[in-house]
Amino acid sequence: MTETELQRLLDDVRSGAIDAEAASARIRQALSSAPFDDLGFARVDTHRTFRQGFPEVVLGLGKTPTQIAGISERIVASGQSLLVTRATPEAAEAVRSVVPGATHHVDARAITLKQGDIPRGIGTVLIACAGTADLPVAEEAAVTADVMGNTVDRLYDVGVAGLHRLLHEHRRLLEARVVIVVAGMEGALPSVIGGLVRVPVIAVPTSVGYGASFEGLAALLGMLNSCASGVTVVNIDNGFGAACVASRINHL
Amino acid sequence: MTETELQRLLDDVRSGAIDAEAASARIRQALSSAPFDDLGFARVDTHRTFRQGFPEVVLGLGKTPTQIAGISERIVASGQSLLVTRATPEAAEAVRSVVPGATHHVDARAITLKQGDIPRGIGTVLIACAGTADLPVAEEAAVTADVMGNTVDRLYDVGVAGLHRLLHEHRRLLEARVVIVVAGMEGALPSVIGGLVRVPVIAVPTSVGYGASFEGLAALLGMLNSCASGVTVVNIDNGFGAACVASRINHL
Amino acid sequence: MTETELQRLLDDVRSGAIDAEAASARIRQALSSAPFDDLGFARVDTHRTFRQGFPEVVLGLGKTPTQIAGISERIVASGQSLLVTRATPEAAEAVRSVVPGATHHVDARAITLKQGDIPRGIGTVLIACAGTADLPVAEEAAVTADVMGNTVDRLYDVGVAGLHRLLHEHRRLLEARVVIVVAGMEGALPSVIGGLVRVPVIAVPTSVGYGASFEGLAALLGMLNSCASGVTVVNIDNGFGAACVASRINHL
Amino acid sequence: MTETELQRLLDDVRSGAIDAEAASARIRQALSSAPFDDLGFARVDTHRTFRQGFPEVVLGLGKTPTQIAGISERIVASGQSLLVTRATPEAAEAVRSVVPGATHHVDARAITLKQGDIPRGIGTVLIACAGTADLPVAEEAAVTADVMGNTVDRLYDVGVAGLHRLLHEHRRLLEARVVIVVAGMEGALPSVIGGLVRVPVIAVPTSVGYGASFEGLAALLGMLNSCASGVTVVNIDNGFGAACVASRINHL
Amino acid sequence: MTETELQRLLDDVRSGAIDAEAASARIRQALSSAPFDDLGFARVDTHRTFRQGFPEVVLGLGKTPTQIAGISERIVASGQSLLVTRATPEAAEAVRSVVPGATHHVDARAITLKQGDIPRGIGTVLIACAGTADLPVAEEAAVTADVMGNTVDRLYDVGVAGLHRLLHEHRRLLEARVVIVVAGMEGALPSVIGGLVRVPVIAVPTSVGYGASFEGLAALLGMLNSCASGVTVVNIDNGFGAACVASRINHL
Amino acid sequence: MTETELQRLLDDVRSGAIDAEAASARIRQALSSAPFDDLGFARVDTHRTFRQGFPEVVLGLGKTPTQIAGISERIVASGQSLLVTRATPEAAEAVRSVVPGATHHVDARAITLKQGDIPRGIGTVLIACAGTADLPVAEEAAVTADVMGNTVDRLYDVGVAGLHRLLHEHRRLLEARVVIVVAGMEGALPSVIGGLVRVPVIAVPTSVGYGASFEGLAALLGMLNSCASGVTVVNIDNGFGAACVASRINHL
Amino acid sequence: MTETELQRLLDDVRSGAIDAEAASARIRQALSSAPFDDLGFARVDTHRTFRQGFPEVVLGLGKTPTQIAGISERIVASGQSLLVTRATPEAAEAVRSVVPGATHHVDARAITLKQGDIPRGIGTVLIACAGTADLPVAEEAAVTADVMGNTVDRLYDVGVAGLHRLLHEHRRLLEARVVIVVAGMEGALPSVIGGLVRVPVIAVPTSVGYGASFEGLAALLGMLNSCASGVTVVNIDNGFGAACVASRINHL
Amino acid sequence: MTETELQRLLDDVRSGAIDAEAASARIRQALSSAPFDDLGFARVDTHRTFRQGFPEVVLGLGKTPTQIAGISERIVASGQSLLVTRATPEAAEAVRSVVPGATHHVDARAITLKQGDIPRGIGTVLIACAGTADLPVAEEAAVTADVMGNTVDRLYDVGVAGLHRLLHEHRRLLEARVVIVVAGMEGALPSVIGGLVRVPVIAVPTSVGYGASFEGLAALLGMLNSCASGVTVVNIDNGFGAACVASRINHL
Repeated sequence: MTETELQRLLDDVRSGAIDAEAASARIRQALSSAPFDDLGFARVDTHRTFRQGFPEVVLGLGKTPTQIAGISERIVASGQSLLVTRATPEAAEAVRSVVPGATHHVDARAITLKQGDIPRGIGTVLIACAGTADLPVAEEAAVTADVMGNTVDRLYDVGVAGLHRLLHEHRRLLEARVVIVVAGMEGALPSVIGGLVRVPVIAVPTSVGYGASFEGLAALLGMLNSCASGVTVVNIDNGFGAACVASRINHL
Repeated sequence: MTETELQRLLDDVRSGAIDAEAASARIRQALSSAPFDDLGFARVDTHRTFRQGFPEVVLGLGKTPTQIAGISERIVASGQSLLVTRATPEAAEAVRSVVPGATHHVDARAITLKQGDIPRGIGTVLIACAGTADLPVAEEAAVTADVMGNTVDRLYDVGVAGLHRLLHEHRRLLEARVVIVVAGMEGALPSVIGGLVRVPVIAVPTSVGYGASFEGLAALLGMLNSCASGVTVVNIDNGFGAACVASRINHL
Repeated sequence: MTETELQRLLDDVRSGAIDAEAASARIRQALSSAPFDDLGFARVDTHRTFRQGFPEVVLGLGKTPTQIAGISERIVASGQSLLVTRATPEAAEAVRSVVPGATHHVDARAITLKQGDIPRGIGTVLIACAGTADLPVAEEAAVTADVMGNTVDRLYDVGVAGLHRLLHEHRRLLEARVVIVVAGMEGALPSVIGGLVRVPVIAVPTSVGYGASFEGLAALLGMLNSCASGVTVVNIDNGFGAACVASRINHL
Repeated sequence: MTETELQRLLDDVRSGAIDAEAASARIRQALSSAPFDDLGFARVDTHRTFRQGFPEVVLGLGKTPTQIAGISERIVASGQSLLVTRATPEAAEAVRSVVPGATHHVDARAITLKQGDIPRGIGTVLIACAGTADLPVAEEAAVTADVMGNTVDRLYDVGVAGLHRLLHEHRRLLEARVVIVVAGMEGALPSVIGGLVRVPVIAVPTSVGYGASFEGLAALLGMLNSCASGVTVVNIDNGFGAACVASRINHL
Repeated sequence: MTETELQRLLDDVRSGAIDAEAASARIRQALSSAPFDDLGFARVDTHRTFRQGFPEVVLGLGKTPTQIAGISERIVASGQSLLVTRATPEAAEAVRSVVPGATHHVDARAITLKQGDIPRGIGTVLIACAGTADLPVAEEAAVTADVMGNTVDRLYDVGVAGLHRLLHEHRRLLEARVVIVVAGMEGALPSVIGGLVRVPVIAVPTSVGYGASFEGLAALLGMLNSCASGVTVVNIDNGFGAACVASRINHL
Repeated sequence: MTETELQRLLDDVRSGAIDAEAASARIRQALSSAPFDDLGFARVDTHRTFRQGFPEVVLGLGKTPTQIAGISERIVASGQSLLVTRATPEAAEAVRSVVPGATHHVDARAITLKQGDIPRGIGTVLIACAGTADLPVAEEAAVTADVMGNTVDRLYDVGVAGLHRLLHEHRRLLEARVVIVVAGMEGALPSVIGGLVRVPVIAVPTSVGYGASFEGLAALLGMLNSCASGVTVVNIDNGFGAACVASRINHL
Repeated sequence: MTETELQRLLDDVRSGAIDAEAASARIRQALSSAPFDDLGFARVDTHRTFRQGFPEVVLGLGKTPTQIAGISERIVASGQSLLVTRATPEAAEAVRSVVPGATHHVDARAITLKQGDIPRGIGTVLIACAGTADLPVAEEAAVTADVMGNTVDRLYDVGVAGLHRLLHEHRRLLEARVVIVVAGMEGALPSVIGGLVRVPVIAVPTSVGYGASFEGLAALLGMLNSCASGVTVVNIDNGFGAACVASRINHL
Repeated sequence: MTETELQRLLDDVRSGAIDAEAASARIRQALSSAPFDDLGFARVDTHRTFRQGFPEVVLGLGKTPTQIAGISERIVASGQSLLVTRATPEAAEAVRSVVPGATHHVDARAITLKQGDIPRGIGTVLIACAGTADLPVAEEAAVTADVMGNTVDRLYDVGVAGLHRLLHEHRRLLEARVVIVVAGMEGALPSVIGGLVRVPVIAVPTSVGYGASFEGLAALLGMLNSCASGVTVVNIDNGFGAACVASRINHL
């Protein structure tokens, strides 16, 4: 039972479309299931939609295709939406053999299947990235935000070395309700954008770069030290996490 | 001219309380001032309220009391609210000699003066901290959120080693619109809170600890790697930054 | 001659089942062997069972399959139990060609063969892990604890982002004599468990994660800074080491 | 109500020394108090003795003398034993003004007051340290272990550069039930001791050293990579934490 | 004999104002001095002006006031210009007691005395800094560039969080022959300026910041990873080094 | 329209070879194009030649061959010169299938095509490297400097362990207008060369080395701490960046 | 002309076996060659034997097989001994195709060819290593010491976890003139050996280990902080460097 | 009984100056004392002279003046030479109150007292340092080498930025039997010297520098990666350790 279904049931009770007893029975049935589903190697958190508004998401990293497919099957079977991140092509194949309707987003390295009513976020989540090489992370954020019910606007390759490319799109920046900024190397873009907008900015450092970028450390430190207020930071390459927070904000 | 004053002026135009010409004159006068005020050692950003909803904030670190007092005086003279962070007692004295009405928050190491209409945030900003030693950072966040127009709820010393202290206050967690979590040492509290709420969680690592805490690095890395989604991170000991983002979110 | 065999021999002397002279001869023979066995590339410590209660364990990392097989053969030939950790499939094959009865635990990347009487530990060693990707390390701990004579209880995928999965198993936590907690990413699980139990907790950081997890550094630092008392830490991914200490404790 | 008091009460019930009703009343009274005591800046965990066998310990670091004295007073008032670590002379003075019977251990930088029945540990906790400069950390461990009910044996200045100083005391090593090894610089002592004993070894890296010791990092890494099995590690300079685990083990 | 004096002497020979023999004598005299002046604790490089166009500069850090004064006296006695960097007030006093004409630049923590003809650089060296706290480093650069014969333009407090403060001065940027950019925290300013100008940009990270700025490491890494081409980097807080290179470029 | 074409057009106007109206039309046409060319995954900065004297350069790292070829095609189509760095053989093949005239420099891992008038630098750019393994980085610098219009002098394998190899070429050092020094391991060469010349020295640390070179970190730190003044540093292995700055200097 | 040949020539002059003129001619001929041999990609230092007692050694890392073979050919052609370290099988094949008599030491990853008279070192170079996985580095040291004219004694797998394996060989330790100690993980062996002998100890940290060994960093730091005096350290895995110093000492 | 005294006794036995029985008695007496002297806080290693040729040295760091004086008194009382390093003025005063004849070397921060026959080293230990600020470390090395019986040659302020200062003293370099090179900042001096001499070079990185010198880390890494063979390294600022090894070598 998703949150929306619960809401509807209660509306039906109020309107008299269903009597209280029947409603009560259905709610008790939903709650009587264990709050997680034990697969041995994983405990799928089946009540997460109730607690946090979106079902458990599967991080593909470090799991075998078989494990990913097994967890995905349970989530889908329980009527919830599916999101797998960091999915290899092998994992995608394994998932689609048990969840045929799932989509594999190659650029974003993600697998999705939308089910049920997903509540819409209020405004637009703008996703800006500094360079072409940041695309996989930006797309992970975009796919995540989309599957969680948000309208997404993409603004790619607007790094600070050619500032006019960004200023040219000033208006799109101002129209967003939340901005996700994805950048590698020195990670300066969030500071510049943070100084131009008044909405929250979520910075995602990427591992794009070489040498003293130390796999994204330079960008991460840069973003943590941003002189622009209004900027928060997530882990290196964590497009998913950024979109998750953006969606929480956009649904407030 | 603050944002609220501008809004009122336009309302007055619509209602006929003021004629368009007079309104236009007042707006032109406001805009005719340079967008910053050059003090030689500092360029005070006088249009920041328009761009971002709150005037420039003075970071006390690395500035002399004289410089801090000079900048504070200009901000107050322009009719805006004042917030100085990381203020030493010497800086506080210097500021109060030129801005007699300013308040020195000793625990928070901050100086404030509210002026004009500060738009109210919609809900409550809850500030949780793990231990007593995290208090200065938590208070910096609390004072900042307050001066920016937010209702603040403080939940202190609820670290994960005694989980019942946190679970006991589950309801206050659920009632917040944004949660700021301040923690040093291993910085585990945001992960636990992130799993309990559905609103955005802003994690502030502190330099509380010793040895392998490496001045807050352990807490910072822990928070960046949080397995709970919905958590973003700011710099070590950056209570101000966290409150700033929380306020942006709470004013959406 | 294992420790148990020595004990029995002495019991037999006391009971008269064997005369002192014969017993003395057998003990002298055991001691007459050198305290190590020099293979040129390795000196197998043949007296370790006497000193520490379990024979030398072979760390597979950085050794060729031929070297591993050679050492394994000697250990087994001396009548002792065998444990090889970090064994590649090639190493497993090489070992089994000379020790046909050995078992290859694929998940745990370990090879074992039990020989002689292994003294039983007193209570249960509980092994908890935060996520599915931590399984190989948790299994290394489980296989090690088992081969050293301990009863093992597995509690997997109980990370702090879904706290109810852990609290649901509170009783199993309280019934253990030692708890091993395996976690990657922010490594917060040992702090939470450390606050719930009164027995020693051994924390094993894993390299599970990406970006600012820095191959397990984040989890390691988190665990070293645990605000819960009663927690000690071993090297990243060192399931073997944790089980080793747990077994020492469980045999006290 | 300490754990021992509870045990006695139940014994009295069994023996008939007290009737069940009266006992029930006393237990209910104990449980009716909140599980923590909210001082505003701190939530003293009053049920910790029940959960973990020893009351909450006060880490002096980062707390003001006033805060430390306030918390100490509550703990003592509730009839429990007091342990404050990292106590400055100022903190000691503040505590003793409200808890006159408390002892200030200058070398160990600790404050203690024993109250009630503290259950005795089974064997001896041996505390070895490598050099004279490691003494403050070793003493913190010794004072902690003592106040928690353990017999302590001190073996100081036995670093590996003069191995005979350690081997000379081999017998004391073998007689301990748990060994705490405190060492700075390269931190090699736990590896050597870990290879000589069969009981658990808890290694405490110290910040003793200079240059590439990086404030204890060298010792910490050395201990984490110990080639001797049976060694676990706590935070740099964390004598308290080591003793805490040792005591848990010694009370099993 | 400075380079200019040598040039003049040769001009005089050509014009006949001095005969070759006398000129030769004077040159031989200059060369007959050892290429360095051995003070026991220091070897003053007296030929550096010939090799590199400016005499040896005294880094005050780690030298006693007496040593600094001793070296300064020798440099001045040989008719060359003096520059001492990182001079404490004590060092300044010691130098001025032996070189009464020297100037102490308090903000820049430098001591200077100009002597002889210092060749002028061709264009302007622009020194931009991000915030008020970067001033000491920026001033060290300014004083150095000035004493080496360059026209200096100061552009202070133009950090990227308020981009209009920088864009407002676009023209001054375009008029410089070399640009030095001084910034702490995330160090993003050089990337933005590097994208706006076509002359070389020398980036100076400063230790301004806190927490994850790690004493300037964040700014340093950011600048090394600048996505703008044309940016090179010097050590943290090394205003002197930046000005030195700028002067070399400006004298080409 | 390149900068040289614009200069010629204006010369023609002055000389009367073209009338003002026609010239104006051509300039307006050039300006009417957007300042960048949006390919979806990239925004090619078409005005960079105007702003900075050389068209946008393509960093091959992290881009697919298809993306690299697409961007290259646009740059060449607009009549500008092409430089792709960090090009894999696959990328080179893809580029040459759409830009048949392009050259693949295998050692330098670069692709170039010269088009139009490239303004010549004034003097020579000397590129010194410490060892044979530094060659790829040195060649990247050499190819970059060449395509940007500079005369290049190569001085390879002159590391400080055999100082006579360098001193033997003292004259070539003195004849250069800018010196690029490429070195891995301890990165000492720039300090030695910095003390011998009076022109700017640009140091490029390389990842050549092993163990405690930490992928070039040792060389990077060494160069940043150079005791020779006049040395600036670029990112590890960034031959391109060094040549870029050298070219800016050489064109002043 | 090697050093020994020069010595002999001078002896012959003294004994009258050759007249001074002829000797002079031969020496002049030797000196008339350039002090290095320029191959374009490398400058082979042909006078190194004169300066340092052994010809230039080829570090295979980062050089192509063709380059390695080219340099090797020149060294051998000049009558000097050859040592190539870090040689891949491909490099070995390439070298042997041009230097058929060369030996490929597979374990040591080295190629050698002895030519001419190599002066013998005075005593024995003992090479101890802690574990089997340290063998490649120990063998690199052994092969290097041997080709430089030293008697080598190998003492392998004597790590501190089983101290009796080392103490059993105490006499061999005392008989050496220099001791090289190779160890990974916590790198404690040099401290223990340093306390037992009075000759110089050269410690070689290896990258053997995992997790918090950080590729040899733990061992490196441990060795640098050794509490035993008389220990110096070389780079991680640098068996060659250790043997080089040992040989210099052994030839004093 | 020092080593020299033992040697003399045995000579006397051989010459008949003392009969074997009396000699045996004296030796037995010497050996009958415990191999260390237990002061509670320290175990003074009284047999170290026998094992390693010089008595135990007292590292002043982290010990109280009282502890230092206590240990010093014992060492002197046993007839051995005294060396205390890292001695504060307070420690010096405390030592001299119990060992009146001791010398306090202020620059070197050391205390010494020579007693008995100290065997002379064979050649000269040359101590070179790069800059004036490295003097305290160089002097610690010089005082240590001197008290251990070596002839010391000091060559100060010969850093690589002014190479002629070093080359000017080439002959002194060639005359040394061991060279200690002390340098901070980029630590390049050992590489240059290592390429000029054929004797062992011991490199001592110092914490001299700022910013990216990271308290000596840059110099340390540089020295570990030296491209010159024949260089070994000790801890940052460890002048004592370097002299210790130099003395071992010089006494071979």
